[in-house]
Amino acid sequence: MVDTKTKDKEVIKKLENLGENVLKQINAGEGPQVQLPVRSLGNIYFDNKSKTIKLGDKTSERQFLNIAHTRKFMQTMLVANEIKKVIHQNATVSIRDLYYALKHTIEGTQENTFEDQGESDPLIEDLEASLNLLREELHLAASAKGIIAGPMVVKDGNDTIDLTKMGSGGWSVPSNVEEDRVTIKDISADYVLFIEKDAVWRRFNEDKFWQKNNCIIITGRGQAARGERRLVQRLNREHKLPIYSLMDADPWGMYIYSVIKQGSISLSYSEEKLATPETQYIGLTVGDVAKFKIPKEVTIKLNQLDIKRLDELKSYEWFKHKKWQAEFDLMKEKNIKMELEALSKKGIRFITEEYLPQKIKSGDFLP
Amino acid sequence: MVDTKTKDKEVIKKLENLGENVLKQINAGEGPQVQLPVRSLGNIYFDNKSKTIKLGDKTSERQFLNIAHTRKFMQTMLVANEIKKVIHQNATVSIRDLYYALKHTIEGTQENTFEDQGESDPLIEDLEASLNLLREELHLAASAKGIIAGPMVVKDGNDTIDLTKMGSGGWSVPSNVEEDRVTIKDISADYVLFIEKDAVWRRFNEDKFWQKNNCIIITGRGQAARGERRLVQRLNREHKLPIYSLMDADPWGMYIYSVIKQGSISLSYSEEKLATPETQYIGLTVGDVAKFKIPKEVTIKLNQLDIKRLDELKSYEWFKHKKWQAEFDLMKEKNIKMELEALSKKGIRFITEEYLPQKIKSGDFLP
Repeated sequence: MVDTKTKDKEVIKKLENLGENVLKQINAGEGPQVQLPVRSLGNIYFDNKSKTIKLGDKTSERQFLNIAHTRKFMQTMLVANEIKKVIHQNATVSIRDLYYALKHTIEGTQENTFEDQGESDPLIEDLEASLNLLREELHLAASAKGIIAGPMVVKDGNDTIDLTKMGSGGWSVPSNVEEDRVTIKDISADYVLFIEKDAVWRRFNEDKFWQKNNCIIITGRGQAARGERRLVQRLNREHKLPIYSLMDADPWGMYIYSVIKQGSISLSYSEEKLATPETQYIGLTVGDVAKFKIPKEVTIKLNQLDIKRLDELKSYEWFKHKKWQAEFDLMKEKNIKMELEALSKKGIRFITEEYLPQKIKSGDFLP
Repeated sequence: MVDTKTKDKEVIKKLENLGENVLKQINAGEGPQVQLPVRSLGNIYFDNKSKTIKLGDKTSERQFLNIAHTRKFMQTMLVANEIKKVIHQNATVSIRDLYYALKHTIEGTQENTFEDQGESDPLIEDLEASLNLLREELHLAASAKGIIAGPMVVKDGNDTIDLTKMGSGGWSVPSNVEEDRVTIKDISADYVLFIEKDAVWRRFNEDKFWQKNNCIIITGRGQAARGERRLVQRLNREHKLPIYSLMDADPWGMYIYSVIKQGSISLSYSEEKLATPETQYIGLTVGDVAKFKIPKEVTIKLNQLDIKRLDELKSYEWFKHKKWQAEFDLMKEKNIKMELEALSKKGIRFITEEYLPQKIKSGDFLP
């Protein structure tokens, strides 16, 4: 395990190198510039080897003496410098804190360093991508909204936390779950169940599904944040646990699944450290309607937006598997979608006592 | 302490009374009807005695034989019956589960019992108001998104949870924190700090503010859900702890505060059990800008929507105190608002090490 101090030193070294290179250029009488990866769509691809979305190797230069770059160049240096200060203070801050900390009127001018957070956020992403560091390693806290419970003990700071003893609430997943912060001490679970919705997670927790089925249950409350995704990746990589996803049978649930599995375009530069390609899709599917005799009153007709999104999903390289194409075709043919809560029609505990156990037993997953 | 079984019995009795009255009317050859409190704005007021928003005593009748009421009458009976079943199964369900569980095509017709959740949700509120029961007592889970930490031990089911040992994550506040579910076992805190924003809560948790200042820190991540509000009320009523609110200095943050303190119009029928009138507003205020020498670059100009909302707040009876009126006037005069994160301009830990301690020490609160 890498400790925080060692890791911080490496990060500071990278930030200092950035500054020293600029200084060298100035001392040599050159116009200072930094090399940055291009983060636009044209430089993003699905990597068949790692099975994640990745950033390509195109780069561009940000030049201080190019008037179109000058402001951004100055801002990039300010952001890098502030991050270094935050690390030295042994703190973690939000990207909004960072924006405010840096915002000031430049002395002797009417000009502000930053006008809004929309100016500082992309520069943080530039630094993450160019230094090949996670936001967490830069001591920046991403929002986190997940909850977790199950047979696992973690150490977080000086606290040892037994996730079987979290009552009806659950443990709130921290923003930073890197191994120097959160250590997985003891884990006897057979698999991890990633549940799209908070309300459904509460059903599984109330029924103590994790105890009866010896698994970890986690929710991201909709689109999963980095903390949940990274924790799931660690459970899969370090502890070889299978990851199963339980989502609404609609293009939105299926997309959330795909982000957990291979990542998102906007975080392409970090996906190797966030995505979990071994994740499998356990449900819901439109095929479940027939398999589990779900009354059609609780299915919902697709709307125009659903159909448009479905066509997009169908075209994504990572959804090209014939099983997924068949599911998309069936959804379109039947013209329905279905929410997880719809299973309540079959009984309140149908989802935890019949649907899930049967799905797992029969290995009836989508890839 | 009331145990769950006793409480459930009382609730079931109330639901059965509702049904038995209808049955009696039918047996007597009368058209069945139920009496329900009117929940529209005209029947809602600020009660100066309890200092909470309240529902008045106007009622209306829902009559089965009035063709305009027939469908709703049938639906009300279905909802009451399903809630009884849920309680008997010793489960808690979401209001969406309830909707799906009840949705079906009525035999021999083309008619669905419910078309969408917009039909079932208001009927749940009708039952809560007419039976004078909290949603939680009907075994319905509200969404919950809060996080809490600090010197307090709770018992939730069979789990004893020490909220000083929750690492960087915190304990996720359950949807139902009624005393038959969550028992406050041990509490040594001097006060409760209710923080509007998740990211700011994480700053307080990372700095172990709750340890240094012997307090409970809780966030509702924006508008507080019922679970957080009810827990805060219990900490105030049962343990006599002062409640301090820390919000953005804008009409939205101040409104969130007012909901914690005296409640909301939409939940008027439950506010006596949810609101905490003793809550005080610790900050931010526009007055803080001068008091703490906050650079004006990190304040934000009010927009049209802010000004409109500010005028609404100014007119609310519960904001009539001269200190609040002065704050609203100052906000309008200076034409600025300010986010909590803006304090980062004065240093990352300014908010936890200077601002808050100084505010508490000087008792510089708004009522």
